[in-house]
Amino acid sequence: MPYKESYPSVLLSDAVDAISSLPGVGRRSALRLALHLLKQPAENVHHFTSAINQLRDQVHYCKCCRMISDDEVCAICGDRTRDHRTICVVESVRDVMSIEATGQYHGLYHVLGGIISPIAGVGPSDLNIKELVARAEAFENPESAEVILALSGDVEGETTAFYIYRQIEHTGIKVSSLARGLGFGDDLEYADSLTLGRSITNRQVFKP
Amino acid sequence: MPYKESYPSVLLSDAVDAISSLPGVGRRSALRLALHLLKQPAENVHHFTSAINQLRDQVHYCKCCRMISDDEVCAICGDRTRDHRTICVVESVRDVMSIEATGQYHGLYHVLGGIISPIAGVGPSDLNIKELVARAEAFENPESAEVILALSGDVEGETTAFYIYRQIEHTGIKVSSLARGLGFGDDLEYADSLTLGRSITNRQVFKP
Repeated sequence: MPYKESYPSVLLSDAVDAISSLPGVGRRSALRLALHLLKQPAENVHHFTSAINQLRDQVHYCKCCRMISDDEVCAICGDRTRDHRTICVVESVRDVMSIEATGQYHGLYHVLGGIISPIAGVGPSDLNIKELVARAEAFENPESAEVILALSGDVEGETTAFYIYRQIEHTGIKVSSLARGLGFGDDLEYADSLTLGRSITNRQVFKP
Repeated sequence: MPYKESYPSVLLSDAVDAISSLPGVGRRSALRLALHLLKQPAENVHHFTSAINQLRDQVHYCKCCRMISDDEVCAICGDRTRDHRTICVVESVRDVMSIEATGQYHGLYHVLGGIISPIAGVGPSDLNIKELVARAEAFENPESAEVILALSGDVEGETTAFYIYRQIEHTGIKVSSLARGLGFGDDLEYADSLTLGRSITNRQVFKP
């Protein structure tokens, strides 16, 4: 009984099914990983799986900004030295980590947990937009506070940004979005015309 | 408190550590996978981890050929229609699956579970060689039985093949190894000279 497409063991086949359900992991890689795990000491494998289970079961989301956190309030929202009157709205946890890695931003965040996408069936009510509106409305002197819409430049990002803008417009809070233009080191010759056009329209005062 | 190199949550950091311990998975991919798992329903994640735990804890190795199996004896060793007088010796479980996928072999296997490698600290006693010798010695009329050494063509593979040959030589069993030469569709121009040289030395009778 050769097993052309199948596996020598149901347990192995189940593990390959599970591992290949991860994004970007095909069945060949999944088999390689499963056989790797099989060769490891049992306690290493249990440590591996329990780290994943604990992440899924015990992680908290900051009650203020919805960022992943070990506590009720995340390290950023709990930091008194940060600018609590600026909120940077991002799609995901990864975006917060990317912006923090730049070291250029010292305000707070708001993680939407996704982006409005009719195709993917994600509507405004699936995202943390209500919580953002509540935060915007809670500011005293809203005209000196700011919401930065740091969303991606595609249709979904623009739609979500516009939707949020309409929801918080009435508070009088300042709303900004990320600068778009040529990247640092980008060659004019290879820039797409949409980006180049926007770069010219939104040209900045030259600061030598 | 920005987290330049670190993570917003200890649980996330632990999960990234665990996932990036897999071969070929860097910390960026591990973060992507951890955040993916975090977005999945809890029961999917538990199914994922328990499939891996079950594989590690409950998998059997065939008592005859040391292949992964759900039972005491694997499907191949238990198959009466296969040629039980030919044993193909391979390094790993994957090799069995690769050879089975060709559909060209109908004998049994013997999985060594590794290859002799002084650099990696793997000696003959770490492999299932003793079991192979016992199988070879158990044949009646050994001269009509065969052991195929299907090991890789590198130094470790050659060393292991030679070691096994010396161990089973006394039984009088026929010992063969895989044919080496140009691959099907290979271009002479691009073949390395060692392979080409061996292909000429080991030339075969032309079968039109």
